[in-house]
Amino acid sequence: MEDNNTIRLRVFSLNCWGIRYLSKHRLERYSMIGELLSREQHDIVLLQEVWSEKDFLGLKRELSSSHPYSHYFKSGVIGSGLATFARHQIHDAFLYRYSLNGYPYMAHHGDWFGGKAVGVVILKIGGLTANVYVTHLHAEYSRDKDSYLPHRVVQVWELQQFIRHTSGGADMVILGGDLNMHPQDLGTRLLRTSTGLLDSYTETAKFDGCEGGITLIAENPFINPKELGPFEKGVRIDYIMYKGSGRVSLRCVSLATTKGSVPGHPFPYSDHELLTAELELQMITQHTEGNRTREELDRNAAKLAELVDMVTEARTEVKVGLHCVERMRYTAARTGVMGLALLLLELAIGAVPWLALGANQPFPRTSFYLLGALCFAILLTAFLLYVFYTMEQKSLQGAEDQMRLAVGSLQERLKEFPPTHALNSLRRPSDDLDLCPLEPEE
Amino acid sequence: MEDNNTIRLRVFSLNCWGIRYLSKHRLERYSMIGELLSREQHDIVLLQEVWSEKDFLGLKRELSSSHPYSHYFKSGVIGSGLATFARHQIHDAFLYRYSLNGYPYMAHHGDWFGGKAVGVVILKIGGLTANVYVTHLHAEYSRDKDSYLPHRVVQVWELQQFIRHTSGGADMVILGGDLNMHPQDLGTRLLRTSTGLLDSYTETAKFDGCEGGITLIAENPFINPKELGPFEKGVRIDYIMYKGSGRVSLRCVSLATTKGSVPGHPFPYSDHELLTAELELQMITQHTEGNRTREELDRNAAKLAELVDMVTEARTEVKVGLHCVERMRYTAARTGVMGLALLLLELAIGAVPWLALGANQPFPRTSFYLLGALCFAILLTAFLLYVFYTMEQKSLQGAEDQMRLAVGSLQERLKEFPPTHALNSLRRPSDDLDLCPLEPEE
Repeated sequence: MEDNNTIRLRVFSLNCWGIRYLSKHRLERYSMIGELLSREQHDIVLLQEVWSEKDFLGLKRELSSSHPYSHYFKSGVIGSGLATFARHQIHDAFLYRYSLNGYPYMAHHGDWFGGKAVGVVILKIGGLTANVYVTHLHAEYSRDKDSYLPHRVVQVWELQQFIRHTSGGADMVILGGDLNMHPQDLGTRLLRTSTGLLDSYTETAKFDGCEGGITLIAENPFINPKELGPFEKGVRIDYIMYKGSGRVSLRCVSLATTKGSVPGHPFPYSDHELLTAELELQMITQHTEGNRTREELDRNAAKLAELVDMVTEARTEVKVGLHCVERMRYTAARTGVMGLALLLLELAIGAVPWLALGANQPFPRTSFYLLGALCFAILLTAFLLYVFYTMEQKSLQGAEDQMRLAVGSLQERLKEFPPTHALNSLRRPSDDLDLCPLEPEE
Repeated sequence: MEDNNTIRLRVFSLNCWGIRYLSKHRLERYSMIGELLSREQHDIVLLQEVWSEKDFLGLKRELSSSHPYSHYFKSGVIGSGLATFARHQIHDAFLYRYSLNGYPYMAHHGDWFGGKAVGVVILKIGGLTANVYVTHLHAEYSRDKDSYLPHRVVQVWELQQFIRHTSGGADMVILGGDLNMHPQDLGTRLLRTSTGLLDSYTETAKFDGCEGGITLIAENPFINPKELGPFEKGVRIDYIMYKGSGRVSLRCVSLATTKGSVPGHPFPYSDHELLTAELELQMITQHTEGNRTREELDRNAAKLAELVDMVTEARTEVKVGLHCVERMRYTAARTGVMGLALLLLELAIGAVPWLALGANQPFPRTSFYLLGALCFAILLTAFLLYVFYTMEQKSLQGAEDQMRLAVGSLQERLKEFPPTHALNSLRRPSDDLDLCPLEPEE
């Protein structure tokens, strides 16, 4: 698999749909996945929705010889659902929990309990440092009325921040996961442009899978086609992305996805299709430190301008979220005040018969206590919601502040673009990592 | 302040004790702090416990000419309390919220509501990238019976992970903040050894301040000396730390702290003492890429071994925390079950008179409802606590997993130490960043 100067890496990503007691044929599907992985021996396996640690441990046992290294990321109430298996040693692991992730009272959506996050494991592959990221963003339950959009935009913002800031020392970056976003959605574009990650579907030399690379498809028997809305055939929301560095160039040789069924099995691996990308690493032995061409500079300037637009668009989305949360916070506060007023009113009415305890009560004692309990419940719920919405507001404001800072910094760099023509070539590649990487890929 | 090849940087850190309505002389103290900062014009200002955004905005207005760049980190319910001001442009900001931070029901301690975190701002200083971190860890309310120790250990673990992973592309790293840990505490040692950060107090050429560099001192009028316990004079829990890189060497020229009073003012700036460190940056123009000496290798091996011990010690602390949370989780579950049993019992007893609604009730209706409400409150509280403890458990387990991985990786590197003598010099500096930096500082 390796020659003198090139290494081939096979990367696997799958949303396993592993909800205990709820996901159909869970155990059978895990055994199919385990069998596939131990047969195919991908170098890097990135799994999402492995909600039960027991299932992870089962896979770990099964893959102990094919994939001796693994890490399971714990987070939230149920877990993050993120797991990695590797044939190369994992030297370090780190988890970033997204600051926003739905609402605990939307229990039927369940995202909040999952503690959505991005995990990174650091591998050494042929003497090179690979930062391998796995993530799963908040689900999109309705495309027309997507109340979670600001949360997902903040998640993608934090994701790109995390990748950019933690990959400074890496020779290559690989990201796999279920982004719950279409390729042309703001979040996907922002992620690609700000980190410089390349989408294996658009970059691959060879593709085998459904038309358009869709990974949530109508033909999958676990999918209710109605949920796909206007996208009759399906949508592409699972990705494998990658980028090299000044030391390594990376290209995608092939990408394959399943098509809703598995030969010899009555059902597919999951409700999502699985992705397998084959990447080719080529060591860059000679640095071409010459002046960048005018063309390159123009392309970089165009990308920066594009990025400014995207971050501005993301800011607008976050502002919409802020507007909503401010309204909800106000409603919670008002409800709390009403509950308190009702309680005080009740106490005032009850005060006189209370003093004459033995007399025939004008305010029936049962109703008195029931009403009191109700007022208290309203007060408590309103208080908890108020605290929760305040935290949501703080996270949204924090993301917006960071975005404003980024737009300012980008615009300044954009202004300086033509005169820095000569200077640019003096920069080290890592200088380019702040918000727009634009590294030479070959 | 700058000559050809050296730059001097003045870094300021202060826990401002800015709790609205509670902290004494808050506004007067902020005006003193603002006046000091605009007069002294430190390059980098790192503030903690700026709990109110209004106070931050007040400072921002006051420092608009001396410190044109600033960032306020938002988190939790009240905020993270973290703020930075800088004379150099802030290009990017990113926040990591610690996964554990006390308990919401310990409202009198308040840490949970503060959303403790570590913030980083990226500055460009003389063409160099500086990663500047500011943080504030969970308070230590009792040294003998410190129930928050596992939380603080996990926070310091996440802090060192965050610094190590995000500083790969940085030319220099500066950290300021209130760690709430003594210099010889496990957390401080772990932080220093794993990140390679140098403590300005132990490294400085010149020191002006209280004996032992203490920053929470008995002489401060806002301090109750009883809270210092056996440390009669005070403790050192506020730090400025720094490190260079292969491109820049950094040394601490001087460190100064206040001594509990401010000339010309009736009270000090805060209940903590402020720190001012003067750092000298020297560009490394020539790389000494020669083989490392035997001595250096031995020192590195000793440091690695030390780090293994520390991470193992931290793991033990986390395991103690896990043991506690498992007990608390069990108690919450048992209480919930008892509440449910009581509710069912009550319903069963009440069932017969319920059917004969008009008759003289054997179970008084008032008591019936009161008891019902009580059972329901028990059930709800137990459920919320159970969910909270489950999340705490997941975070502790996650940190322990990461620590186990780190110990394994470190031990492996330690084993390989003597034979890699020759190879070592071929490594790039960033290779050394995983868990033990040990960069050449000159």
